[in-house]
This record gives sequence, C-alpha cells and structure tokens, in this order.
Amino acid sequence: MNPLAIGFADVEAAAARLAGVAHRTPVLRSRTADARTGAQLFFKAENQQRMGAFKFRGAYNALSQFTPAQRQRGVLAFSSGNHAQAIALSARLLDMPSVIVMPQDAPAAKLAATREYQAEQPGSEVVLYDRYREDREAIGRRIAAERGLTLIPPYDHPHVMAGQGTAALELVDEVGTLDALLVCVGGGGLISGCAVAAKHRLPDIQVIGVEPEAGNDTQQSLARGEIVHIDVPQTIADGAQTQASGQHTFPVIQALVARVLTVSDAQLITTMRFFAERLKQVVEPTGCLAAAAVLEGAVDLRGQRVGVILSGGNVDLARYAQFLHTTHLETR
Amino acid sequence: MNPLAIGFADVEAAAARLAGVAHRTPVLRSRTADARTGAQLFFKAENQQRMGAFKFRGAYNALSQFTPAQRQRGVLAFSSGNHAQAIALSARLLDMPSVIVMPQDAPAAKLAATREYQAEQPGSEVVLYDRYREDREAIGRRIAAERGLTLIPPYDHPHVMAGQGTAALELVDEVGTLDALLVCVGGGGLISGCAVAAKHRLPDIQVIGVEPEAGNDTQQSLARGEIVHIDVPQTIADGAQTQASGQHTFPVIQALVARVLTVSDAQLITTMRFFAERLKQVVEPTGCLAAAAVLEGAVDLRGQRVGVILSGGNVDLARYAQFLHTTHLETR
Repeated sequence: MNPLAIGFADVEAAAARLAGVAHRTPVLRSRTADARTGAQLFFKAENQQRMGAFKFRGAYNALSQFTPAQRQRGVLAFSSGNHAQAIALSARLLDMPSVIVMPQDAPAAKLAATREYQAEQPGSEVVLYDRYREDREAIGRRIAAERGLTLIPPYDHPHVMAGQGTAALELVDEVGTLDALLVCVGGGGLISGCAVAAKHRLPDIQVIGVEPEAGNDTQQSLARGEIVHIDVPQTIADGAQTQASGQHTFPVIQALVARVLTVSDAQLITTMRFFAERLKQVVEPTGCLAAAAVLEGAVDLRGQRVGVILSGGNVDLARYAQFLHTTHLETR
Repeated sequence: MNPLAIGFADVEAAAARLAGVAHRTPVLRSRTADARTGAQLFFKAENQQRMGAFKFRGAYNALSQFTPAQRQRGVLAFSSGNHAQAIALSARLLDMPSVIVMPQDAPAAKLAATREYQAEQPGSEVVLYDRYREDREAIGRRIAAERGLTLIPPYDHPHVMAGQGTAALELVDEVGTLDALLVCVGGGGLISGCAVAAKHRLPDIQVIGVEPEAGNDTQQSLARGEIVHIDVPQTIADGAQTQASGQHTFPVIQALVARVLTVSDAQLITTMRFFAERLKQVVEPTGCLAAAAVLEGAVDLRGQRVGVILSGGNVDLARYAQFLHTTHLETR
C-alpha cells in the first residue's frame, strides 16, 4: 500500500502527457556560482517554461485527464498568478473554458497574461478578490458548483503534483547523479512531485525545501508533525504566500524531504541580481528561493552536485526594475 | 584567388579551437515573436556565451594562435567593453598578460568584469582614455610598441572575424535551412564572420546587417561603395558606437551582406523589454539590434525562417533597470 498521493508512475505518466507540449527547459551552469559555493550547481530553468513557470506542467497534466463532460463545461482555478496562467493556457490548448479567481493585487503582468490566454476561449473570465479579507477557496468552490466547473487547486491535487514532478525528472535524467536537490516551497506541489521523481531515480538524494523567512509554514509543520496554518505572509516571493501545505502534499514532504530552509527577501533580491548579471536570466522572486539558499549561504553544500529549480520568471517589469536598481529591501 | 580576409576554412578551424572552451549557446524560440512577425525566428543566445557576449569567440581564436614569444609578452586590446572582457578572459585561460585600453565612460559592469578577469594574471592592467577626445588606436599602438605586446583589434583582424563566424556556424548546423540571418553591425567583425559561415552552408541565405540609426556608417559605406567614417554615434547601443567598418571586414560585407537596416534607440528599449518579459533573457542594447529589426518592423520577413543573433547581455544593472522601467528614450 502506498500511503502517499502520488508515486513515481504518476510522474512518468505525466511526462508522457507533457511530451511535445511542455518545453524541456535547459539546465544552466555558472562557474561563478560553483566557485562561490564550492558545489556543482545545476539550475533547471523553469523560467523558460511555457507561460514562464513550472506551473504549466501540473495544470496541463490535470486538464488533459478531464472527461469529455468535464472538458465541455470547463475548469476553475484560484491562484496568486502563475497557476492562473498555467490553467488558462492549458485550457486554451485543450479547447475548454476557464474561470480564474485571482487576488486583486496579483502582479499586473500575470493578470494581463491570464486574460490574454483566455481571449480566444468563449466562456472564460477572471474573477478578482481581496486576498487579505476573502477566502479564495470558498469563492472558487461556490462558482465551480454554480457553473459545473471542475476545480483544479494550485497545488493540493495528485495530478498537479505529478505534473510538477516532471521538472525534477528531466533534470535528473539530464545531469545524472545529484547529492541534493533544492526546491522552493509554497503549498508544496512542486517539491512533493519533485521529491517523488528524484528519490525514485536517486534514493540517496537529499531533497531540501526553501521558503521565505516570513512564510515558513512548512518548516513549522515539519517540526510540529502536522500542518501549521499561518497568516498570509508578507514577502516579495508572491508565489510562496501560501498559508499552509496541502493535505496531499504534506505527507509526501514529511516522507521524502530532508529539511526546509528559509531565506530573506533581501537575499532573494541579491539572487535576482546575480541571475540577471551573470546568467542573463530573468527569475522572479519566488523562482530565486532555492538558488538563494545555496548562493547566500543558508546551507553549505561544498563538494556536492546540486540540482536547483528556478521555478519561474514572471515578474512585472517595473517591479523587477526596482529590484535590480537597489540592493535595499523594498517593503510591500 | 580569394580576395576576402577569411574563408570558410578559417571559421571551421576556429570552431575546432573553440570546441570545449566556448559555450555552444542555446537557440531560443518564441511563439509570440513568430506570431507577431509571421516568420519563424531562431534566436542565437550569445548573451549566454562566456563573459556574456560573442566576443569571446574571436578573442580566444586570435590569442590561441599566438607564438610562444607573443604569448609570453602578452596581448593589448582597445574596446568599448565586451572585447575587453573577451581578451582579458582569453588571456587568463591561455596564461598570458593583457593590457586593455578602455574608454573612461565604459559601462561600470564591463570595466569591473575586465579587472576581475585580469586579477590573477601578473602584468595585466586597464588603461582608461576619453573616447570623445582621444584616439584609442593611437594609444593602443603606442603602448603595444613600448611593451612588445601583440595588439588584437576588436574587429578588424582575420582571426577575430573567423572566431565570430562560429556563432552563425553553430546556429545553421543546429536549425538547418534559413532564409535570412540578422546580425548587428558595429565594426563588422561579427557580421563578416557570420556571413562567411552562413553563405558557405546556405548559399541562398540573405544576410542582413542592423545598425543603430545614429551610427549607420556601414549602411552609408555600402551605398557609397567605400568605407565612410562618421563621428562617434550617440546611441544606447554602446557596442556599435564604431566610426567605420574595417579594412578587412568591409570587403566581406560588400561581397556577402544583402543590405544593412537601422533601428532607433526607442526600438532597442522595446526589444529589451520584450526579451525580459517573454523570453526571460537579459539582452544588452547592442544585442537587441538584430532582433529589433524584425520585431519592430524595420523588415518584413513573413513566411521565412530567420536566424537572429542576440550578440550579448552585458549591461549595468542600474541602467538596465532604467530601460525596463520606462518605454521612453533615455538621452545619453
């Protein structure tokens, strides 16, 4: 009996569904980063994934398993941004309507991109809410029930988790043995899928999660042995402003993740600047979490071969420009 | 008799010297760019080359052909930036001293990077000059003569030209048939090498040069049938602030380049923003020249397969942040 929501076969099946649809993103190296950390770092550039983040993998994997009846009525999603775009794009590719519940203060670029993906798909729309006062899950479930839409949550769904795991599967299959894998943690969709894939291929690999300092709910949950809920964390890592791990993701994290570290917003900004200056890559704040842990010294991985997921690159250019222009922390 | 400074065999030999030393940079695609232009665009990402620009190819190809005596004394280069870093890095890799003559107002990032590459190499230094009042060639030649250094100019040298051509060779060998190739033009080192490589592999390909509006000396030279000298052009494309094509590069351009187009600084900024937002790539202003021509409509290549060289990604982050933050043209 497998007590976890997904197994390796689910990730493998997701990889087959995504073949030729998702990008096989490049693995980037940096002599400077290796020299600074004493490790060999392999950056999986999911900022170059379709719609700019790993989220496409999980969304497409979930939507491609809809029944014809589900497909006809469409999908509903609530998301702080990248999951929204991922669902909207996947829905368009699979020719179904999408309704996206997004926070009013979501990055403008993510809102615009979501609407762009929906533009040619009848019955599609964006519904806005106030994330500091309203409960997105309640709103989402109400609309889904009213319109007969299938709700796909941003992380706590086996098909979503399995899809995200294909990022680690590709990385491991491309670079071979790794001693450690660093993955950002929001609700745990990415790290749970990646942990299942990585630990199957490399049983000795240490899977390490990284959260923003202000939003270390998963770190607390692991220490407590149960899911801890926190207030909406104030961090520039908008993709990791989750309040708790999921019912499906947390047991996988408990079983397969060695530990969870945290980094500060200031460290995220330094890391964003590093990627712009040295690797010529635009990486969003959340996308810098895993890399910041090793580049900014939250963990010493000297002598190890280390996979690092750069989870996405979707950031308002005006805000990104602010990050590049200053090393000081912007309060938000 | 081959009247041109280089032939295809020179590019091929350069490729062999660069194998395992230079990065084989990725070729990027963009559905958005293809949809907007009606063409199939293949972006050769030389912003991901070592030291952040194609210039490494030519510099390393030249320095690796030094005699032991030349190598012992070292190399001298004058450059507005990327050639400087390319020479400094190549000299370090080949264990020889480098003296770099750079303008006082070169981007701080390029100056710092050059000094960083030189740091471990005894006898190496940066010499600054005023590019609006002094003649860098005169300064360079004087120092080279005094210290017995071999001068490697930024573009007008067969070994440099042949090295740069390997960028187009890799692109063509990776993507197959192309109808057109867009290449930025400063002194003509990149486009001459690329034209030799591309026209050998694909005799029917149209090689198109792109200059900044303010610095269209090559366009003027082709119209006049002889090398035209202009004042130092005021443009954000600092890598194309050249005053004239070279004695070696111009005949190649005359023989193999179909035409030269121009784009404005405002179009370069729009293109820089496009690469940050859509492809998550940091591309410097000069590196956007070729792409801007097709993305901003200076040329209609509908229905064609088009190679586009993104020549580099070295830009001061503070300045880059300004470009991203506004669509208005910054005067310089």
